[in-house]
Amino acid sequence: MAKVVLHGYFRSSTSFRARMALNLKGVNYEQVTHHLRKGEHKGEDYLSLNPQGLVPSLVWSDGTVLTQSMAIMEFLDEIIPEPPLLPRDPLGRARVRSILQMICCDIHPVNNMRVLKALGSRFGADEEAVSNWFTHWVAETFGPLEQMLASSRETGRQVHGDQVTMADLGLVSQVFNNRRFGVSLDPYPTIEGIFERTVILPEIERAIPANQPDAE
Amino acid sequence: MAKVVLHGYFRSSTSFRARMALNLKGVNYEQVTHHLRKGEHKGEDYLSLNPQGLVPSLVWSDGTVLTQSMAIMEFLDEIIPEPPLLPRDPLGRARVRSILQMICCDIHPVNNMRVLKALGSRFGADEEAVSNWFTHWVAETFGPLEQMLASSRETGRQVHGDQVTMADLGLVSQVFNNRRFGVSLDPYPTIEGIFERTVILPEIERAIPANQPDAE
Repeated sequence: MAKVVLHGYFRSSTSFRARMALNLKGVNYEQVTHHLRKGEHKGEDYLSLNPQGLVPSLVWSDGTVLTQSMAIMEFLDEIIPEPPLLPRDPLGRARVRSILQMICCDIHPVNNMRVLKALGSRFGADEEAVSNWFTHWVAETFGPLEQMLASSRETGRQVHGDQVTMADLGLVSQVFNNRRFGVSLDPYPTIEGIFERTVILPEIERAIPANQPDAE
Repeated sequence: MAKVVLHGYFRSSTSFRARMALNLKGVNYEQVTHHLRKGEHKGEDYLSLNPQGLVPSLVWSDGTVLTQSMAIMEFLDEIIPEPPLLPRDPLGRARVRSILQMICCDIHPVNNMRVLKALGSRFGADEEAVSNWFTHWVAETFGPLEQMLASSRETGRQVHGDQVTMADLGLVSQVFNNRRFGVSLDPYPTIEGIFERTVILPEIERAIPANQPDAE
């Protein structure tokens, strides 16, 4: 079997999600890093692999290039069933995916680097305006998410029961992202508890940005 | 079995995705509409159903409230296997999900109404600036998507082979959204062909915004 290669960037939360899933599934992989601030993901070499020029891309052992962090997590969960990253029942799976998508659709895309940059170049947004933008969209989702998690009998030590699912991985990646803008977790005790219980797992700890070869 | 109720809005592309999937799966459902421009999705009644205050919400026959359009499509595909909205093989499923997520994560969230409004209120963006923002993010993804679809042997009459999948539904919803800002499909002949072949299906036609009870 050829090597599995993850193209990513230490600080990218989408790359972080892929690393956590790969580690939990026990996949051996090499990392190729693309420095986003230097624009390395927009070079010809990388675009020939992933025309979107976004990270991560996962080159699977048969050479297939997989993109989009949620699709990568689903793929890994389908081909390596243990430990499962989704519950078994369809309603539980829908709940986990929905919470994951609250983070991966409603927070992250609106706050990722290319959008924050565009706020500056198009509207002259300064550092403070960008920071306010970031924290606004986090609060818009983390507020209801905290309420949904705190009020649901499905919530356990993790987002869904006591087993780590994709939703926990999304949550962890977002909390790390938040730190760059000093977003406090104080208003979100349930989210904070889940984060604290997840981030200490060895598979997650190995995936955190500071522990990557390209960390600055 | 109690009724299935879809809470949505005729013009919301996420509601549109849910309607297409429900129709393809042959689910009987009632619609409750929430006028987004009038802020009806932020009323107490709706927030008690979906604390995020976003559409769609699908109240399933057992009373469970499902949110997030991609999670809803996955749920329907799991409990009603025919016709499938994903291929069978894990790599094919990853391709379909990845293309769906290019649209649902990289275009739609950055361009949805609450974000466009925030550009106006925070940065004084006028109509032209908002329109340029919208078309920019469409082009950023539709460019590579056209290239990926045109160059892949997996692409058939639809995004993946000849069977309609979730990715086609995402594509159709985005093309309708684009029309509001006059985005031409001329640079995207493969996308346009797939759109034309999908939108004429009766299940899709019944789901289009103009054919909803709350259409203006």
